[in-house]
Amino acid sequence: MVTLGLAQIRPHIASVRENLELIENTLEQAAGRGIDVLVLPELVNSGYAFKSEEEVAASAETVGQGTASALFKDWSRLGRLIVAGICERIEDRFYNSAVAFAKGEHITTYRKIHLFGDEARWFAAGESEPPVIEFGGNRYGIMVCFDWAFPEVARILALNGAQVILHPANLVLPYCQTAMVTRSIENRIFTATANRIGNERELEFSGMSQVTDPRGEILARASETDAELLVVEIDPRLADDKNITQANDVLKDRRPELYHRLTDST
Amino acid sequence: MVTLGLAQIRPHIASVRENLELIENTLEQAAGRGIDVLVLPELVNSGYAFKSEEEVAASAETVGQGTASALFKDWSRLGRLIVAGICERIEDRFYNSAVAFAKGEHITTYRKIHLFGDEARWFAAGESEPPVIEFGGNRYGIMVCFDWAFPEVARILALNGAQVILHPANLVLPYCQTAMVTRSIENRIFTATANRIGNERELEFSGMSQVTDPRGEILARASETDAELLVVEIDPRLADDKNITQANDVLKDRRPELYHRLTDST
Repeated sequence: MVTLGLAQIRPHIASVRENLELIENTLEQAAGRGIDVLVLPELVNSGYAFKSEEEVAASAETVGQGTASALFKDWSRLGRLIVAGICERIEDRFYNSAVAFAKGEHITTYRKIHLFGDEARWFAAGESEPPVIEFGGNRYGIMVCFDWAFPEVARILALNGAQVILHPANLVLPYCQTAMVTRSIENRIFTATANRIGNERELEFSGMSQVTDPRGEILARASETDAELLVVEIDPRLADDKNITQANDVLKDRRPELYHRLTDST
Repeated sequence: MVTLGLAQIRPHIASVRENLELIENTLEQAAGRGIDVLVLPELVNSGYAFKSEEEVAASAETVGQGTASALFKDWSRLGRLIVAGICERIEDRFYNSAVAFAKGEHITTYRKIHLFGDEARWFAAGESEPPVIEFGGNRYGIMVCFDWAFPEVARILALNGAQVILHPANLVLPYCQTAMVTRSIENRIFTATANRIGNERELEFSGMSQVTDPRGEILARASETDAELLVVEIDPRLADDKNITQANDVLKDRRPELYHRLTDST
């Protein structure tokens, strides 16, 4: 069994130092709860609703050199995995990224491939398939927020072996929580969406961080408005059973030879 | 505006003649309701829960030669479109098919590509992408029942221009009605699932035929148990707006160059 934690928190735009304190407090709280795998929302070091490139630049960090990633790395030392959304800098470009640290090491960085709303004003889109990582004998896929709207993402993660999707988010549309139930059912996987709360400028974030299981049951859901550490015990191996009926395997029953339309560029 | 009708009915296994009468009565009822586009459930000429190939063969018809397709063709003459699931015969093979007739002509036949449960004992799987047809200036995609579990199908239909998915079904799992809400949201399309009711041998069908709109709203839903003709006015052109936000188009924002995993055969 894995003790999965989702931190539903409230970062603040243009308050980098406050956000780092919030991260530190959140990690401390999670350390006291016996969590093996922790998910934080999207862009926790920066807040979301940027109005200038200066705000982006002020919060952005290069993984391995910044304070937030140092905190994540440190938290992960004691045999733990953490996945968190950050505002990342690579040379003169910025990315909306999810970083993964396990056992004191940086494991991977996923750069969001489907940018939402104004994000393309600030961020370059990622150019790589979303990753699946192994930790403690289980396999975790990573996606970020608006990737929920593209069934291709969860499907690719499931095809690449993910048992659990770790999903940092800053949700403003009302659809994702329901869509993740469908992602679970169609792929027979767990999903763990760590969403944020609160307002920033014109945006209101929806909370309701949630965990779904391979049958599409909602195992836990946080409130719409309150900071909360959601803790759920799961057995990721349940996601290895892809049989939606005795005769039907949701992955093996696919007909990829008839799906070429999905990879057409036009 | 289009007046869309979904006939939630109760075919009977191994009662071919009764099923043809049921179809005839259903079409007569629909004719009196001003319906432009009518969807019937899956396998309406045969029932579902076969226990022998003789039962399959007794009901199967070759499109253009059988009684059910003659009834559909006739009903469609007055400027109407009908899509219905039938047990189809081609030489010595059987298919779980959806036939489309419009304005007195056979337009297309879709042979289900994702077979459910025992179906592979009786049916060959289709070998073609699901079709999109044009009728009255609008575009309709066709899929059958268990295709709901494969987001690839609705996605292909949307990419090929479908504004409305016509979806004959014989549902026994509890998931489809929720999944179709997600199919609508992620593709910004209408869906129209015509499900059957009643029991056959060990199977219980779930009713709740439904129509969803491009924002994922359930425009109408039938009961779980009663025969019903669901009639809904829709404007298919609403599905031409793919913008889930001002900045985001659910189809154009796809990253097909990163989706090659979806068409791998392994």
